[in-house]
Amino acid sequence: MLFAPAHRMSFKLGVLLAITGVLMACERQDAARQPTVAAATHAATQADPLPSWNEGAAKQAIREFVKDVSTEGGPKFVPAPERIAVFDNDGTLWAEQPIYFQGLFLADRVKALLPQHPEWRTQDPFASLLKGDMKAVASAGEKGAMEMLVATHAGMTTEEFSKTVADWIATARHPKTGRPYTEMVYQPMLELLAYLRANGFKTFIVSGGGIEFMRPWTEKVYGVPPEQVVGSSSELKFEMRDGEPVLIKLPVLDFVDDKEGKPAGIQSHIGRRPIAAFGNSDGDLQMLQWTAAGSGARFALLVHHTDAAREWAYDRKSTVGRLDKALDEALTKNWVVVDMKRDWNAIYPTGNSQ
Amino acid sequence: MLFAPAHRMSFKLGVLLAITGVLMACERQDAARQPTVAAATHAATQADPLPSWNEGAAKQAIREFVKDVSTEGGPKFVPAPERIAVFDNDGTLWAEQPIYFQGLFLADRVKALLPQHPEWRTQDPFASLLKGDMKAVASAGEKGAMEMLVATHAGMTTEEFSKTVADWIATARHPKTGRPYTEMVYQPMLELLAYLRANGFKTFIVSGGGIEFMRPWTEKVYGVPPEQVVGSSSELKFEMRDGEPVLIKLPVLDFVDDKEGKPAGIQSHIGRRPIAAFGNSDGDLQMLQWTAAGSGARFALLVHHTDAAREWAYDRKSTVGRLDKALDEALTKNWVVVDMKRDWNAIYPTGNSQ
Repeated sequence: MLFAPAHRMSFKLGVLLAITGVLMACERQDAARQPTVAAATHAATQADPLPSWNEGAAKQAIREFVKDVSTEGGPKFVPAPERIAVFDNDGTLWAEQPIYFQGLFLADRVKALLPQHPEWRTQDPFASLLKGDMKAVASAGEKGAMEMLVATHAGMTTEEFSKTVADWIATARHPKTGRPYTEMVYQPMLELLAYLRANGFKTFIVSGGGIEFMRPWTEKVYGVPPEQVVGSSSELKFEMRDGEPVLIKLPVLDFVDDKEGKPAGIQSHIGRRPIAAFGNSDGDLQMLQWTAAGSGARFALLVHHTDAAREWAYDRKSTVGRLDKALDEALTKNWVVVDMKRDWNAIYPTGNSQ
Repeated sequence: MLFAPAHRMSFKLGVLLAITGVLMACERQDAARQPTVAAATHAATQADPLPSWNEGAAKQAIREFVKDVSTEGGPKFVPAPERIAVFDNDGTLWAEQPIYFQGLFLADRVKALLPQHPEWRTQDPFASLLKGDMKAVASAGEKGAMEMLVATHAGMTTEEFSKTVADWIATARHPKTGRPYTEMVYQPMLELLAYLRANGFKTFIVSGGGIEFMRPWTEKVYGVPPEQVVGSSSELKFEMRDGEPVLIKLPVLDFVDDKEGKPAGIQSHIGRRPIAAFGNSDGDLQMLQWTAAGSGARFALLVHHTDAAREWAYDRKSTVGRLDKALDEALTKNWVVVDMKRDWNAIYPTGNSQ
């Protein structure tokens, strides 16, 4: 290595955010539960592919853009193979409060692995986590965070890890809503994904979350197959075990797909510049800049969490999903800003939630 | 970094191979030119999607596999989203003699950049390369190789590099055949790619070559879009230049997509195990092992270069595209081995070659 590139520098930040997330989640687990947010009734008609979007500037801008780029012969036409749309996940496609859901997965894994690791009962940061002593966990710093990540995310094969995630996502419930996490995806964004695909777009997820944490469920939940998921990753090692080839997840962070890392992740995995990008936080700023700066028709959209009653309201001062610099830039550059409270008549899908 | 994973260890090997390639290419540039190999006439019928394949075990195995996995309700049916097929590039989809074509690109870049780098006339390894003193180039070792790679592949934006490759691929000619490199792709493999896609497969390239070296032309030549190309890569850095966002190719090798690296590259980019893999050398062994070891119907194929008259004949002792261990394993495991001389009635497409 001649020098460490910028997107690796954000590693510490990412780990600290994850830890912060675990702390906050544990502190809030005792908070009063609220009844499940009921999704609004859809007055869906065949004519409206976006029934959960209220009429307004955001919905109009989306429909106009899609019409422009898919109208053959029109001045803004874009050939279908170049209709690449990228979506952040946490806070854009599904919720992210009180912390990134992968942080809750990490905490649950520590508890689940306790029988195989009785030493954790007396060994920090695990012991402190189990006792709920979050100040002590925090004092273990980056080293402690790395220990927990390694213990819960590394050392197993990719297929073992995938099964662990699939089992968790099928059974875990959100501490506040009591919903499965896959039912805390945003109904308006599901409609948007489908609408874009129906108009020749290829939809990708580009998330700071772990790529192997998302792939086991994104195809079923979002219609986005594993090969269209970009995320943070650890190194993989190929080896033969009992004559069978396996890929082992190493305790070595390979790529952090956040902030400056997002355009790099897009180039690495997609290899061409998207024409549309959807995010909700400062972590998405560079992805939106990269997308918007291309030639021809471009679309950049931020989801602004403004709905404390049906979801959460947060922006410039939130530790999770902070939206500050990107909001300023959106206002300057006339990017579309979705006001969740005003623009969405439904938040979550109507489903079999508790 | 806690430790360096195995696939990074092959970095030195890769660089040395590239250098060996440059040396061999330079030595052979004066070799007698042969007339362009004329592609055999196709007796293509609507009924035969593989007209350049002679009837025989290889062709029969391909057709049987495709029928098996695409017959709904059949015992070997595979849902379309899981029909992932991966192809090596050098020696599998296009030729690779006398050296990997990217080595010829590197040598041409050194010559093209000479006006901006007059110091290269007196500075090794460039001076030796320009004088044709290949022993001196070789003595510069890995450090010298890295200098040449950095000078020709790094420091520019991804878009500048892409244009450089596109210009080269449009104008450069192979030292022996005089053909453009994109007309040294294998006609039978073009038919195979199209046949698989017509049967619901998604086709990917998984090559030891540079990912950004392939993407500018694979969609046009193979029908494989940039997002379905996996290859070796350098680190990318996002930055603003004069208010515009750019991605800079750094002089830092990020990933070597060869040997043990190929299954890791597949997992990173595709996220699920292919059901069919096509290669030609020991560099593809682990990719074929990884593919073949999955459950359900599986297909593994090696192209064996046996045709010295129409192409090249080489295997166990070749420095480029060595086929030794993988050939043994193919025989043991009953993988399909294509005998180019016997199984293919055409090598290159009939086109506008010189």
